[in-house]
Amino acid sequence: MTNPIGVHALVWVGETTPSALSEAVSRTQAAGYDLLELSLHDAKQLDTAAARAELERAGIGVACSRGLAFDADVSSTDPAVVDRGAQLLADSLTTTRELGGTILTGALYSALGKYSTPLTDGGRANVVRVLRELAAEAAGHGMTLGLEICNRYETHVINTAHDALRLADDIGADNVMIHLDTYHMNIEEDDLVRPVHEVGDRLGYVHIGENHRGYLGSGHLDFGAFFHALADVGYTGPITFESFSSAVVSPGLSSDLAVWRNLWSDGADLAAHARSFIAGQLAAARPR
Amino acid sequence: MTNPIGVHALVWVGETTPSALSEAVSRTQAAGYDLLELSLHDAKQLDTAAARAELERAGIGVACSRGLAFDADVSSTDPAVVDRGAQLLADSLTTTRELGGTILTGALYSALGKYSTPLTDGGRANVVRVLRELAAEAAGHGMTLGLEICNRYETHVINTAHDALRLADDIGADNVMIHLDTYHMNIEEDDLVRPVHEVGDRLGYVHIGENHRGYLGSGHLDFGAFFHALADVGYTGPITFESFSSAVVSPGLSSDLAVWRNLWSDGADLAAHARSFIAGQLAAARPR
Amino acid sequence: MTNPIGVHALVWVGETTPSALSEAVSRTQAAGYDLLELSLHDAKQLDTAAARAELERAGIGVACSRGLAFDADVSSTDPAVVDRGAQLLADSLTTTRELGGTILTGALYSALGKYSTPLTDGGRANVVRVLRELAAEAAGHGMTLGLEICNRYETHVINTAHDALRLADDIGADNVMIHLDTYHMNIEEDDLVRPVHEVGDRLGYVHIGENHRGYLGSGHLDFGAFFHALADVGYTGPITFESFSSAVVSPGLSSDLAVWRNLWSDGADLAAHARSFIAGQLAAARPR
Amino acid sequence: MTNPIGVHALVWVGETTPSALSEAVSRTQAAGYDLLELSLHDAKQLDTAAARAELERAGIGVACSRGLAFDADVSSTDPAVVDRGAQLLADSLTTTRELGGTILTGALYSALGKYSTPLTDGGRANVVRVLRELAAEAAGHGMTLGLEICNRYETHVINTAHDALRLADDIGADNVMIHLDTYHMNIEEDDLVRPVHEVGDRLGYVHIGENHRGYLGSGHLDFGAFFHALADVGYTGPITFESFSSAVVSPGLSSDLAVWRNLWSDGADLAAHARSFIAGQLAAARPR
Repeated sequence: MTNPIGVHALVWVGETTPSALSEAVSRTQAAGYDLLELSLHDAKQLDTAAARAELERAGIGVACSRGLAFDADVSSTDPAVVDRGAQLLADSLTTTRELGGTILTGALYSALGKYSTPLTDGGRANVVRVLRELAAEAAGHGMTLGLEICNRYETHVINTAHDALRLADDIGADNVMIHLDTYHMNIEEDDLVRPVHEVGDRLGYVHIGENHRGYLGSGHLDFGAFFHALADVGYTGPITFESFSSAVVSPGLSSDLAVWRNLWSDGADLAAHARSFIAGQLAAARPR
Repeated sequence: MTNPIGVHALVWVGETTPSALSEAVSRTQAAGYDLLELSLHDAKQLDTAAARAELERAGIGVACSRGLAFDADVSSTDPAVVDRGAQLLADSLTTTRELGGTILTGALYSALGKYSTPLTDGGRANVVRVLRELAAEAAGHGMTLGLEICNRYETHVINTAHDALRLADDIGADNVMIHLDTYHMNIEEDDLVRPVHEVGDRLGYVHIGENHRGYLGSGHLDFGAFFHALADVGYTGPITFESFSSAVVSPGLSSDLAVWRNLWSDGADLAAHARSFIAGQLAAARPR
Repeated sequence: MTNPIGVHALVWVGETTPSALSEAVSRTQAAGYDLLELSLHDAKQLDTAAARAELERAGIGVACSRGLAFDADVSSTDPAVVDRGAQLLADSLTTTRELGGTILTGALYSALGKYSTPLTDGGRANVVRVLRELAAEAAGHGMTLGLEICNRYETHVINTAHDALRLADDIGADNVMIHLDTYHMNIEEDDLVRPVHEVGDRLGYVHIGENHRGYLGSGHLDFGAFFHALADVGYTGPITFESFSSAVVSPGLSSDLAVWRNLWSDGADLAAHARSFIAGQLAAARPR
Repeated sequence: MTNPIGVHALVWVGETTPSALSEAVSRTQAAGYDLLELSLHDAKQLDTAAARAELERAGIGVACSRGLAFDADVSSTDPAVVDRGAQLLADSLTTTRELGGTILTGALYSALGKYSTPLTDGGRANVVRVLRELAAEAAGHGMTLGLEICNRYETHVINTAHDALRLADDIGADNVMIHLDTYHMNIEEDDLVRPVHEVGDRLGYVHIGENHRGYLGSGHLDFGAFFHALADVGYTGPITFESFSSAVVSPGLSSDLAVWRNLWSDGADLAAHARSFIAGQLAAARPR
């Protein structure tokens, strides 16, 4: 298997200023990763042209991710809120393209946060409509959208692979794929294997996170079972490591993700460890 | 082992009206449980004298639980908010006593919800002060307080056994014990075993919930490991089953708990299954 | 799911005398099982007509199992040894039929024991030839043969589902199915899920045994994962509980199985516990 | 934690000739291990002085291991057989010492093989007597004996930590320690955690092997749980990787271990992978 192995920028830096971006790229390269995932959550300071040049110089690929906000949310039934959400998505697609990326993924379908009511039919219809349009736009640029399945506290739209597949069916675009994240699967799915088989060749992006989002192996997720399943469905796409600690704070995102604990302080050690862990699991999971 | 086995009332009913209470008690008895756990979250309609009579008639014990609210929160630094939280706790202790219970547990130390900032030192000091006073009051009635350790999305005060033990140390009262919940442990702890050994004989209450809060065994929690650890530390206290589905809704609590999915619709089948599952694990876990 | 749930007779009795058989049948019935599995390892004292009458009276189905012996072994290259093995199999098929059973399973392809050399090509060819003939004979009576996959210390012919499927392919008979046993899978397979998906609808019989062959849940097998996989492939065949303790000894079989420890002494408690455990897992594993 | 990490010589070579030994040492060094474990099972060709020189040159430590044989078995009740077993042990201790090693471990208490009857009281008494004498001899040289707990098919003397501790108690020597092996624990113990806590500071040697003895992570052992437990008891001793494939054959040992399958063919890749896997688990398991 030759899956590209990625790392989330928040392992390195909490901002997207040019100097922060430069640090993220060089550390990603030093730790041996193929891919940097950049959250567009707080990306106002991002200089896309400079970032793209850094990435290309380093030979590092890029994928972008984001969630929306309660006042810019395509799962709302308030047209103005939906429009602001659609605009955020359109802008993010542009940013991704300018960075040289082909994947925009995340909670593209809702705010990243704790809702106080269930999803409504009208809200869901808005998600389908907006993402269908975004997918068409993305397709014109050879780009792919990912539906990252998040836990109940981060969205009320899709919490399981089952929900995500139905949403993707309703959107009905070939360039909308499913994005599984072990951290969220641990909370919402029956196990770490069923969803992989259920999603099968519609799987397009993977987040590897420990149950508490710390060092891989310091928690109790059954990564062996997950990597066996990835091998069994023949997944060859990106696998990106995610971990959050109060040691690296992004003003908005850290709070949205409820990062209260210092799970690590040395991102370089963390990332080297994770790179080796993931590569070791991939090697072991190949059927013999 | 002869642990009392309990069930959360929200498996049966979403309200605390006399008729709902009566139904909860009779179904708890029919399913073979020893104990009913009652959330005091939405307990305005509760008739404690009538409920106590029902419980005694059925020979069912009671434990009470609750979290606080953002405007009545002892982890706040706003004195008025803290006072309202302290009042809620005092009232809940009274209610528990009137019901004939000796255990009040839950997120007694904070709102049950997603915070947007980390805990402050001042907020934590308020928690310690209020709970120390509440513990003294409880001790006078032979009652015990539980610190239920909840996940990052439901509190920012204590997310791990390590945090909870330090908080209990600071409160410094013998009748404050630790309450472990497998649903929350799955998200926050290193595994389901370490915290049990770490807490040891300070463990006073246990919630058994699946990773997605559905049928036990339909998820992927390693209950074998957890029950082995309970046996190894000699735990003989209550073990209460918790499960939430959109099939039974409590107006406020269901939203605080982010219950968006229909994980089951037949509470009686669910509870009979859980009773048998827990008893089977207890029997198997005894060292031979 | 409506899988018949069975229990191995060695949970009850170590012999096959009429009185022992009678005890096994009545206890199987009392514990709520649908099926009794009878080893034909030491079956000289078996009165098949009387046993069949007992089984029918109790409404209990029967399945037979066995391994061969080093001096009667169809995986040998010594024609006389192979012939004795083939005769044992033919006799066992007759016995199974006389008992009213339609399934003969086990290590039908080799001695049940520790070999000192790997399987030879000639030995494997003999297995294929003899089992092809036996399958034809069985088919004429509407009967099915199971290839139970055993661990490296109990056979050198097939230790994995991969090996078993290739052997079944070479035998090439529709009434030869695969028999998975969690005790053996735990030692030989990559995990408890891959083999279930690999075998798929060729799965015809299942043994549930704990890693040390004691109480279910007293060990550490991930039964949740296994039952989830059974549900995912739609398995509806028999599921039989196996457990061995020095408390119930079969003169030859106990030694072949290396039963040195007293893992339980009360077979009735053990079996009632296992019946409830298996039924609970089946109920929980159904996709919702 | 600074546990020395070792590798079993059978990952590299099947013999103990000087050239084989030389290859084993240089490959152990190249793969970054601290320690080479040498089986004395087939050690007639071993040139201890040359081997010691190689080890010292490479800066690699050594530990020796072995089981006995059915005709040289200290658990027998035949005095001549016991004496031959005692002689094998005495010779092995000498060899270990000549190699510069301080640890002799393994199934020092019985043949490495499938017994056909349970251990007798007389046989056990012989084990205690002989090992007490051997321990005294070892103590005089500052050496330690390990009781490796093996599965039911490889010995009938001790299959669990519980049995091993009682045997060590009866031997009553400070330099007799317990040796846990995940491959055997998987078959015989309740889980991979209980025995670690039970043995505690009497743990002196650890074998890491996958459930089928192949690549770490290609099977399903819960290594996370095991390494968490090692960290929790503060184990700082050697941790040695064991894996067997038909690709590297030791004339006697491979058969005793029932190695029928080709689980890997590139020992260097296997060992580098295992080294990284173990180091990664150790780093992750440290409480934070």
